[in-house]
Amino acid sequence: MKLSARNVFPGKVVGLRKGVTTANIKIQVAPGVVITSSITMEAARELKLKVGDKAFAIVKASEVIVGK
Amino acid sequence: MKLSARNVFPGKVVGLRKGVTTANIKIQVAPGVVITSSITMEAARELKLKVGDKAFAIVKASEVIVGK
Amino acid sequence: MKLSARNVFPGKVVGLRKGVTTANIKIQVAPGVVITSSITMEAARELKLKVGDKAFAIVKASEVIVGK
Amino acid sequence: MKLSARNVFPGKVVGLRKGVTTANIKIQVAPGVVITSSITMEAARELKLKVGDKAFAIVKASEVIVGK
Amino acid sequence: MKLSARNVFPGKVVGLRKGVTTANIKIQVAPGVVITSSITMEAARELKLKVGDKAFAIVKASEVIVGK
Amino acid sequence: MKLSARNVFPGKVVGLRKGVTTANIKIQVAPGVVITSSITMEAARELKLKVGDKAFAIVKASEVIVGK
Repeated sequence: MKLSARNVFPGKVVGLRKGVTTANIKIQVAPGVVITSSITMEAARELKLKVGDKAFAIVKASEVIVGK
Repeated sequence: MKLSARNVFPGKVVGLRKGVTTANIKIQVAPGVVITSSITMEAARELKLKVGDKAFAIVKASEVIVGK
Repeated sequence: MKLSARNVFPGKVVGLRKGVTTANIKIQVAPGVVITSSITMEAARELKLKVGDKAFAIVKASEVIVGK
Repeated sequence: MKLSARNVFPGKVVGLRKGVTTANIKIQVAPGVVITSSITMEAARELKLKVGDKAFAIVKASEVIVGK
Repeated sequence: MKLSARNVFPGKVVGLRKGVTTANIKIQVAPGVVITSSITMEAARELKLKVGDKAFAIVKASEVIVGK
Repeated sequence: MKLSARNVFPGKVVGLRKGVTTANIKIQVAPGVVITSSITMEAARELKLKVGDKAFAIVKASEVIVGK
């Protein structure tokens, strides 16, 4: 499946923290560029996410703020 | 100002496309990692964004989808 | 690719309106259930979206408000 | 109140999972179409959400990704 | 309809800018507090939004970044 | 740093609720206007947020729904 989301970055899971309903995942997509994602625990379980996994960080362009 | 947003990446503006109310900005944050942002034209004007500028791409963790 | 997004609905493109930087897409996912999406024109062009196409509407759980 | 959100779907609560600060709600809006929402526990308590309730799933068009 | 969104602020439309697919609306919710919203033109037309109208600005808690 | 986000409101932290992975913060930005934010606990810790702190509530225009 091809996505309209402009930002689809392949990387590796380098961090994972589980709560009751929410999990925080860290995906390294380049040296020094680690993207943090907050997803439902249900999703984390379904994707069987664990540190070391290959994964994609996906962000819609409308969610990106620019700073200068 | 320090932000709660987990994803604040410094980079360089490498693309800019202006519409009537919306602008699309491309910020390169690492070799091969270009983040696309969609912001209001009002914001693009206020920040005086142009290709070559240093800029930050900022994304809240709750906006990041994980793919596997 | 499997997505963490909890809402991935297959459907058919039933409407498409193009602006300068933004396009509005309507995807019917069930009888009487049409999901409207606003994406960049760049994405609409890349996906070659047109009325009648099969497509998915994808929404992260954290983006869904509940009304009662 | 009428909302600018393009996606306002009436349905029925078919699932509810509570965490400390976050709750996950599932709303069936058509046969085979269940929308998952992640909201604050404060909101879940205020709306007194429980399985079987009539509820709306509401999504802004800019939050919908298209896949093809 | 009661919303799970934690932020529902009554105010008055003080600005309106229309594009092809997107409109930018400014709603004053308190002295010195003007909230800017970017919505589809389709929504702006349906709500018949114009300067001077009473309106609500609605934001889900998960969309709010904290700065310090 | 200047932000493209159209909504940057200075205020004071008037509430704070911590979960395992997520924290809910309330920031008063005007008399009668309290903005609720849901952020990662990691962010809450890094910003050392506590009741009484000065803080900003930041929202991208594309995240604001209009009601009428």
